[in-house]
Amino acid sequence: MIGIFDSGVGGMTVARAIEQLLPDLPYIYFGDLAHSPYGSKSREMLIEYSCRNTDFLLAQGAKIIVIACNSASSTASYILRERYQMPIIDVISPAVRKAADLSEHGRIGLIGTRATVNSGVYGKRLEEIRPKSRLYPQACPLLVPLVEEGWLDRRETKMIVRKYLHPLRNKQIDTLILGCTHYPLLKKAIIPRIGKRVHIIDSSVEAALYLKTMLDQDTALYESLHAPDTANRYYVSDLSSPVQSLAASIFGRSVHLEKINV
Amino acid sequence: MIGIFDSGVGGMTVARAIEQLLPDLPYIYFGDLAHSPYGSKSREMLIEYSCRNTDFLLAQGAKIIVIACNSASSTASYILRERYQMPIIDVISPAVRKAADLSEHGRIGLIGTRATVNSGVYGKRLEEIRPKSRLYPQACPLLVPLVEEGWLDRRETKMIVRKYLHPLRNKQIDTLILGCTHYPLLKKAIIPRIGKRVHIIDSSVEAALYLKTMLDQDTALYESLHAPDTANRYYVSDLSSPVQSLAASIFGRSVHLEKINV
Repeated sequence: MIGIFDSGVGGMTVARAIEQLLPDLPYIYFGDLAHSPYGSKSREMLIEYSCRNTDFLLAQGAKIIVIACNSASSTASYILRERYQMPIIDVISPAVRKAADLSEHGRIGLIGTRATVNSGVYGKRLEEIRPKSRLYPQACPLLVPLVEEGWLDRRETKMIVRKYLHPLRNKQIDTLILGCTHYPLLKKAIIPRIGKRVHIIDSSVEAALYLKTMLDQDTALYESLHAPDTANRYYVSDLSSPVQSLAASIFGRSVHLEKINV
Repeated sequence: MIGIFDSGVGGMTVARAIEQLLPDLPYIYFGDLAHSPYGSKSREMLIEYSCRNTDFLLAQGAKIIVIACNSASSTASYILRERYQMPIIDVISPAVRKAADLSEHGRIGLIGTRATVNSGVYGKRLEEIRPKSRLYPQACPLLVPLVEEGWLDRRETKMIVRKYLHPLRNKQIDTLILGCTHYPLLKKAIIPRIGKRVHIIDSSVEAALYLKTMLDQDTALYESLHAPDTANRYYVSDLSSPVQSLAASIFGRSVHLEKINV
């Protein structure tokens, strides 16, 4: 089993990408809705939640962990790798690598939550991979609530997206990392406002591609994750009304969410 | 000591109103930022958090509890009154009573979070107090994130406020309850969009006025809360960057927030 966790349902964009690329491997998804959103919480808190989520997924039989949340990846992935023996995939490095590959002039924009931007992790990883490039980060705290309301196509959402992207346009970025698993749902609002020539990097898709490459090269790990006739399972630490419909709109099908106490 | 709790800093509008009306009584404020926002959480979760917050305030010496959060008041105030012996003040009944008094035609609007609106509690209380009136509720889930970003005066905020208030204008309400402690900060955006003739009821102020009336009539209780030379204290379960400045803008002075583990 693959274990995937996120603060809520946004990380389901990662789960969906994984099931498209690795349809034979079952996964367990955990959305920590009791503590959602993560983007406005402190580093200390996110480390505590991430360890608790990982323990839960391990207890359920996960053999690999995917942190399907940029805020948790930014603040807690180092700690999780120190504390646990199993492979830990985050949503940051794969996206940074792809951005470094695609960018013509090394002018790379990043949009994310406040926790993600404040961590400075994207900048550090980019520096390691492509030292001569430059990262322009922009915190966009209102985009998660807008997505969670389902306001994907509204005029107000487009205006707020334009406001957030304005400084990045001025910096003439050629590549933009969507540094939050909610943001792929806003692609249609983002692309015309940043400019069609700018490469858009979807951190959810890149994390899934990275996982696939890793498993293609490690047959033993692949086999350990294999569990025929096991269905994917979806757990949440709280369940309120709009969550079911957002989950359904991400997967394009209805998904059974089971509430558990953590 | 008076004990006041909220999901975060919004409830400080209640604390501020209390210190203006009852400057001689010290209070302890607890903002549960580790679980903020409450407005999107389930009833079950809010009951659990509310009991935990109350236990914390009791342990600190509180002799009366003010639930300075409409979402928690809506879902958990009955349970808290059953479970604890001390007086429990919520932000709902005082606002409903005021609205019932002021409304000419009994057409009363309510704006609040999804948890508050879904609870149906405002409607039930209004039915008890003024049976022939009618409540028109409107959930406004994006207003809390907009306030927390400090976007009080922005064009996007005004557009979103207009969109939320539009159905209430059509119902020709004569009175509007601000059923969330964050909303008084948006009064300037709300008043011109609902119409200047509509009475605006601020649930924070009404709760403080109710507390004052109660203490004016109960000298023993007043005396039990009295604690000369005791400063007000502010605790939070998580502390991230924008919280300090929002707290300062509510009180008009800088406030020391102490982080504790719950």
